[in-house]
Amino acid sequence: MDLVRRPFRGIADDVKGRVPCYRQDWVGGFRSGFRILAPTMYIFFASALPVIAFGEQLSKDTDGALSTVETLASTAICGIIHSILGGQPMLIVGVAEPTVIMYTYLYNFAKGRADLGGQLYLAWAGWVCIWTACMLFLLAMFNASDVISRFTRIAGELFGMLITVLFIQEAIKGIVSEFSVPKGEDQNLPLYQFQWLYTNGLLGIVFAIGVLYTALKSRRARAWRYGTGWFRSFIADYGVPFMVLLWTAFSYAVPSKVPSGVPRRLFSPLPWESKSLHHWTVAKDLFSVPPVYIFAAFVPAVMVAGLYFFDHSVASQMAQQKEFNLKNPSAYHYDILVLGFMVLICGLLGIPPSNGVLPQSPMHTKSLAVLKKQLLHKKMVQTAKEGIRIQASNSEIYGKMQEVFIEMDAGYNANSVAKELEKLKDAVMRGETKGGESKGPFDPEKHIEAHLPVRVNEQRLSNLLQSVMVGACLGAMPIIKKIPTSVLWGYFAYMAIDSLPGNQFWERILLLFITPRRRYKVLEGDHASFVELVPFREIAVFTLFQFAYLMLCFGVTWIPIAGILFPLPFFILIIIRQHLLPKFFHPQHLYELDAAEYEEIAGVHHDRSLSFREGDTSYSGSEDSRDEVCDAEILDELTTSRGELKLRTVSFNEDRSLQVYPEESPETQ
Amino acid sequence: MDLVRRPFRGIADDVKGRVPCYRQDWVGGFRSGFRILAPTMYIFFASALPVIAFGEQLSKDTDGALSTVETLASTAICGIIHSILGGQPMLIVGVAEPTVIMYTYLYNFAKGRADLGGQLYLAWAGWVCIWTACMLFLLAMFNASDVISRFTRIAGELFGMLITVLFIQEAIKGIVSEFSVPKGEDQNLPLYQFQWLYTNGLLGIVFAIGVLYTALKSRRARAWRYGTGWFRSFIADYGVPFMVLLWTAFSYAVPSKVPSGVPRRLFSPLPWESKSLHHWTVAKDLFSVPPVYIFAAFVPAVMVAGLYFFDHSVASQMAQQKEFNLKNPSAYHYDILVLGFMVLICGLLGIPPSNGVLPQSPMHTKSLAVLKKQLLHKKMVQTAKEGIRIQASNSEIYGKMQEVFIEMDAGYNANSVAKELEKLKDAVMRGETKGGESKGPFDPEKHIEAHLPVRVNEQRLSNLLQSVMVGACLGAMPIIKKIPTSVLWGYFAYMAIDSLPGNQFWERILLLFITPRRRYKVLEGDHASFVELVPFREIAVFTLFQFAYLMLCFGVTWIPIAGILFPLPFFILIIIRQHLLPKFFHPQHLYELDAAEYEEIAGVHHDRSLSFREGDTSYSGSEDSRDEVCDAEILDELTTSRGELKLRTVSFNEDRSLQVYPEESPETQ
Repeated sequence: MDLVRRPFRGIADDVKGRVPCYRQDWVGGFRSGFRILAPTMYIFFASALPVIAFGEQLSKDTDGALSTVETLASTAICGIIHSILGGQPMLIVGVAEPTVIMYTYLYNFAKGRADLGGQLYLAWAGWVCIWTACMLFLLAMFNASDVISRFTRIAGELFGMLITVLFIQEAIKGIVSEFSVPKGEDQNLPLYQFQWLYTNGLLGIVFAIGVLYTALKSRRARAWRYGTGWFRSFIADYGVPFMVLLWTAFSYAVPSKVPSGVPRRLFSPLPWESKSLHHWTVAKDLFSVPPVYIFAAFVPAVMVAGLYFFDHSVASQMAQQKEFNLKNPSAYHYDILVLGFMVLICGLLGIPPSNGVLPQSPMHTKSLAVLKKQLLHKKMVQTAKEGIRIQASNSEIYGKMQEVFIEMDAGYNANSVAKELEKLKDAVMRGETKGGESKGPFDPEKHIEAHLPVRVNEQRLSNLLQSVMVGACLGAMPIIKKIPTSVLWGYFAYMAIDSLPGNQFWERILLLFITPRRRYKVLEGDHASFVELVPFREIAVFTLFQFAYLMLCFGVTWIPIAGILFPLPFFILIIIRQHLLPKFFHPQHLYELDAAEYEEIAGVHHDRSLSFREGDTSYSGSEDSRDEVCDAEILDELTTSRGELKLRTVSFNEDRSLQVYPEESPETQ
Repeated sequence: MDLVRRPFRGIADDVKGRVPCYRQDWVGGFRSGFRILAPTMYIFFASALPVIAFGEQLSKDTDGALSTVETLASTAICGIIHSILGGQPMLIVGVAEPTVIMYTYLYNFAKGRADLGGQLYLAWAGWVCIWTACMLFLLAMFNASDVISRFTRIAGELFGMLITVLFIQEAIKGIVSEFSVPKGEDQNLPLYQFQWLYTNGLLGIVFAIGVLYTALKSRRARAWRYGTGWFRSFIADYGVPFMVLLWTAFSYAVPSKVPSGVPRRLFSPLPWESKSLHHWTVAKDLFSVPPVYIFAAFVPAVMVAGLYFFDHSVASQMAQQKEFNLKNPSAYHYDILVLGFMVLICGLLGIPPSNGVLPQSPMHTKSLAVLKKQLLHKKMVQTAKEGIRIQASNSEIYGKMQEVFIEMDAGYNANSVAKELEKLKDAVMRGETKGGESKGPFDPEKHIEAHLPVRVNEQRLSNLLQSVMVGACLGAMPIIKKIPTSVLWGYFAYMAIDSLPGNQFWERILLLFITPRRRYKVLEGDHASFVELVPFREIAVFTLFQFAYLMLCFGVTWIPIAGILFPLPFFILIIIRQHLLPKFFHPQHLYELDAAEYEEIAGVHHDRSLSFREGDTSYSGSEDSRDEVCDAEILDELTTSRGELKLRTVSFNEDRSLQVYPEESPETQ
């Protein structure tokens, strides 16, 4: 294989590509001024909350051996390392669910062996990390990232669904546990008498469902009809952490007659307590692990390495989708190398390692695109208005504007910029040519807004700052500990449900439950392109296969020790996809069902585009300068929960007949 | 006044109109066979559940003097009387919220007087009923129902909103009461210790919110994407009682360690217990009431009479909207007379009287229209297919079909029938003429379905049967008593929220909270015509006035004894509407804001009509004979929660500018 023949080729290319922009990565960040804090806070909350929840899950599953302190510490340390030394600064890292599951299996295995036990658990996990790091180094060295184009939708979505199922399972297990005495506590305490356990459980149901419902509602706030744009935008961006805060506050409204342990709250030692400080001794214990287990650690390490390689690459890919128009190059190979170092460090510190996370990584890029747009917009409107004031000709005004754009946009090809700005040019020139239907004179505020191409403020500062803030959460542990555990179970349920829309596997499952007479409803709304291009029978068979495979994967997680192999079916699936599925499905259908990109077809009656906003402005005649809110809303609608951007096409299939598909698909590249 | 000059004119006319169809009212019912049970069951559940809930409210507010037994008895007795002797058999009667409020005021008043007390409460209420009946007789005699055209939207919707606010208040008070010891119970019972009260309250929150959420969801079932038509239709029609049943079943899933009084359940004596049997002695006590109170009873009686006159007439009006194409005449005057008798009987029995209820009355007509359609459809398809089989010409087929229709439709004018069937004729003839765009040959199943005019199976049997079934509920009281009270509080909240959509007052309040930039969203969906035809400022002023008036009315209900006058502001409002408002608002605007009918304009991008179903059929190609399900769904979308039918027009206002309205409104009749 060519991959193996030229070791370090990928890493060298990545470094060569990223070094020239390293200085700009910092300068650009500092030049944005205080505005950089908006995307920073946004990503911080999106990143910290799951890490806290995973910490609580880990604490429950490892009898407190690891807890929120460790997950926060890992996320902060790896985040700082990645933001400074990593290749792609858009990528956000953190402790994720697969890591938590792996560490739970490792704990259960270690606990069962007399010569390991809870005592040497972290040391043994350290060995797993060491092996994992070695394998990641090898993968980086031999250019493994060249294969990421083979990671098609089927494996990624199946994995996403498995995580969803596990989240739901965690939420239900969590709620049920609220009705019983926690492990290792004295059954006879008055707090654990039936009536208080039952009260705790009922409060748990109320809080969990409250968090779930309000978080789901607030996520959709940008599409609300009511409230000002600023308010809706705030709720959409920060609603979920706000709801966690709100329900935590509610939990303090229970009558004082209820004993203080009800509702139950987060269980975690403080970072400065001795229980958290033993991590520094993990490295010393490494060689106390019996040699047979040192070698046995190789098996889970293969799984973890495969998983991390897959997850990290996909998250990075999502953060660099081509619609974002990033100007700096990718660094897949080099980032795997850095990931290897981070895993090694975490292993030696006895904390669970971090890897690239979804959907936070594309969220990060998205929020920086909005920021960049604000900066560009402001400057260009200024230029245009000045031009109008001195009564320059339209071509002079446009020329000036293009100059400003290219200056601010340093690093892009001037030719492609001219092409991207064509629509804006049209809008400016319209006043002169008067050809066709005249759409009114050039309005700087409106037209610049509508025709500005997407640009991302590429820099490292926001990533660094959010990691530092996650680290600062360690100091805030006494406050974080006030969150009721039931609020976190509700949050797990929220994460599960929120991840479903945009997952085509899920959408196909739903499609199976629609009676043929109702399918026109799907076509009325925006829908994935396979709905029109693949016969229903094929969709059904493909989906049922995928569902059966999901059940298999879920079944594997229930096997006591071999469950550690749970990533294996996903690796096998990639092979099945390449060699087995093409024998059962028409290649064109398979292509549509398992497309690399999320292609969507606009609904029959919908016409959702920027033009709405123009119509809107003329309708209301009011002035509202917060146009970026509208942009964010359109972005929301065009992004899946995973952060994937949807390609919007119009139907090429006028009669909407499901049985017919065009002989030539316009997407054959 | 002309009204007064010819007493009994209205009653005489009504009787003259209804007598000829009386025989057919019974024959038509029995001829429908078992199918009549579908609308009967539907109305029975829609009618019985609120009556049970109001009974529990009354029991709580009158310290058990009246309870579910009495409300069920009144609904059953009055229902049987009305279905046999009443004028308009489409009208459904029952104990409604205003009656419950009135009886609560009467109780509070009586309780406070030493010479009345709880003892003579029902006797005194009997006097109120006697006076009310007298006034209703006078109203019927002097043709008061001629004024019902003056009951415009403003008073009706305001009253509806007040009921909504009172329902919400009842739900909240109910939930709060679950946390405390019920009135008149021993505080020291173990059941009423803090932990069990608190558990009871928490369970109450869970059940109430559960009922509220699931009931609201199931009401919308017909529009679901998933499940078969039959299933969705069943959930939409019977989902709410089913949810009450389901949550009642859940309430038995509490662990056995919880004492048996938690969660609290319906409190009501059984109908055959002595506590329920003292009603027969109320008539004997009538003259034990001190004479001063006998005359004082006149004051509440005026209020009750006005309220009943208003409510009964509006409910009857809604059941006979012209879109239903009823063939039998109305009987407003005569029905008020019958109502007077029913109030008298209830007064003497010491039970709260019943009057015409919304939305059950129009629901009744609607369900009978669906039934009639099934019968007509079946027969006509048969005829058409026979014609096709013997290869008759299209005009012969149509002639035969029209014959069958007129035969089944006995009582309609043959000329108007020909006009109503014109579209169907077009569809049949199309095969011959071939003019214009040929829409394919005549398909009996599809075209008869689409072009059949609305007909209602007008008869008395369904009304009688449902009343008898409500009466049978008295025998089922031991089962009904198993419903947790918290389930009923959830049901109150459901009734409140479910009554909001379609109330233009509510829709205008919401409109005030939409920022100008978002108003295009309203225009995108279907919207009431005033949105386009009245300037926003006028809408806002009108709505704020109505809101202030609502707060005033709500304030009145809080006044301890004078609260009995709460219907007074509504009577005043009708006068304000006629004489004061025209001075502040442009008559055309006032007409739009307070239109008698609910006129709606289709959204910009929507095209919701029967034609969808044709498109659907060609898309899926599947055969599904349950077309009535689709009809019911379209009816659902075109009906407000009050049962009012919406008039659907297209916008005559192409640029959708709010500020402009056409010089000539097409609705000036």
